[in-house]
Amino acid sequence: MNNISIPFEKLGNAKKVGIQLPDGLKRRAIEIAQLIEDRGYDVVISGETSFGACDIDLSILEVVDVLLHFAHTPILKDERVVYVPYFIEYNPKIDLKVDERRIALIATAQYVHKLPEVAEWLRGKGYEVEIGSPRGRVVYPGQVLGCNYSVLRGSNADAVVFIGDGLFHATGAAMYTKKKVYAYNPLSGELKEVDARNFEKKRYLEVSKCVGKSKAGILVSSKPGQRRLRLAEKLKKIGRENGLFCSIIYLNNVRAEELYNLPFDFYVNTACPRIAYDDGARFEKPVISPQEFELLLGLRESIAMDEIEF
Amino acid sequence: MNNISIPFEKLGNAKKVGIQLPDGLKRRAIEIAQLIEDRGYDVVISGETSFGACDIDLSILEVVDVLLHFAHTPILKDERVVYVPYFIEYNPKIDLKVDERRIALIATAQYVHKLPEVAEWLRGKGYEVEIGSPRGRVVYPGQVLGCNYSVLRGSNADAVVFIGDGLFHATGAAMYTKKKVYAYNPLSGELKEVDARNFEKKRYLEVSKCVGKSKAGILVSSKPGQRRLRLAEKLKKIGRENGLFCSIIYLNNVRAEELYNLPFDFYVNTACPRIAYDDGARFEKPVISPQEFELLLGLRESIAMDEIEF
Repeated sequence: MNNISIPFEKLGNAKKVGIQLPDGLKRRAIEIAQLIEDRGYDVVISGETSFGACDIDLSILEVVDVLLHFAHTPILKDERVVYVPYFIEYNPKIDLKVDERRIALIATAQYVHKLPEVAEWLRGKGYEVEIGSPRGRVVYPGQVLGCNYSVLRGSNADAVVFIGDGLFHATGAAMYTKKKVYAYNPLSGELKEVDARNFEKKRYLEVSKCVGKSKAGILVSSKPGQRRLRLAEKLKKIGRENGLFCSIIYLNNVRAEELYNLPFDFYVNTACPRIAYDDGARFEKPVISPQEFELLLGLRESIAMDEIEF
Repeated sequence: MNNISIPFEKLGNAKKVGIQLPDGLKRRAIEIAQLIEDRGYDVVISGETSFGACDIDLSILEVVDVLLHFAHTPILKDERVVYVPYFIEYNPKIDLKVDERRIALIATAQYVHKLPEVAEWLRGKGYEVEIGSPRGRVVYPGQVLGCNYSVLRGSNADAVVFIGDGLFHATGAAMYTKKKVYAYNPLSGELKEVDARNFEKKRYLEVSKCVGKSKAGILVSSKPGQRRLRLAEKLKKIGRENGLFCSIIYLNNVRAEELYNLPFDFYVNTACPRIAYDDGARFEKPVISPQEFELLLGLRESIAMDEIEF
């Protein structure tokens, strides 16, 4: 099967196997279930979201022996969760033409496996290339997550080149490093320079909508990899010290639907940072990051990228 | 506070208290949180859905000592879940004018507390009134749930009078009993006769959309009060014996969003029966009940109401 190889050797004595797929792979659920059933296992498909490595359907472990979690790298260690990588093939001889000579290479999980080859190719073209070491929840050299850009910490590069699709991670890298960042899509060959200033402008606008409001809901996700309860309690405390009514709202998926009927004026998101940054517009009320809440309260002078490190 | 009295005596030594509210009460979340905080407790608000008695946010028990679950009667027994009733006040001297003389009275949890008074009033008007005894997941005499009409089992009444709002439970009662059912809204004084035939027609139409389709997803909810895994496994087995590809899909909330990317032709719902009956139109693909699936496979001759008894 294209791009997917089931690690049957890791299933041990399991009889019932759960499979959890990100949206892009859900379309192939039957094909994948069939492949596993052909080996004699009983399969249960998780209907839960699977947006990232922290989004693991632990509740399915009540009805299966092992969960196969597809296309993300491990954050949580659970002996009954087996991670199945999904790598996208591409030509490492990328057609990069940028002025800077010292570049830091980053990529998302599906593209990260070829970074050493891309680096070798670029060095042949005269670039100085660095690939940052992983730490915390990051597994591969050069890998970035929606919530983590630590492979760029202390980078000496003049610019960052992101390999993958979309602009989100590239924008995150720009905010994180304050350097010039290029997003390179190896499938289309497209190169885009990202401008973190637009992103910053939007975030300041979002914070401005919360000025003068008095009731803040502080969102905590029950997803194990996102559960920043301590941070939320700290934010509740400083919010109250500053005269706001703050409550912690505990939920699994933070979606507009869950918040419709709650009477808060705005929300502070301690779950996946992408919820405020990517999905903010879906919510009726403003959704800001912990750092933006501090800015609102006058406890910080400028916006910083929210990150979950460990 | 109107209609709500917090059972502080049941909180024991709890320090952190979770509150879970159905949508109608979520608007009062701050007021309720404040009331509990005024007694010195720390409050965390559940952002999860709370559609019924089976919809209990057990995951919040990871971060609070006790969960106050509002406005439903207990199905699950968990020593750390405290149920807080929410009764709607209304005049038991209802203005009922129906031809039948022997009637069975039913109501939803918020209206059930006054059924004995309503019965007394109606007896004074010359009606013979019965209120069925509760069993299984039903707590009060005469109480119906979206998934359970067992208080009507063996009823000798000529007609059923439902006290509450909406037509769903009344329609369910009509399908369940095949008797004439009146829905009486005690707040507006409106009386409506429900016609289960329309409901049945719609359900046959839904089943007809599945004819000739080969891939069925069998939905199982992880909510403890809805988890009919054995039934789902039986349906998967008989589906396969009849040449369909069936997989079990395990998820917490069954919503259109979760199913968007899955490649099944239709779904068989073993979670809350209301999902197929009330929310069917929200889904891209047909969603049918276990009984309707049996009808589709030729294993049953007519539609029956899906019910969860215990």
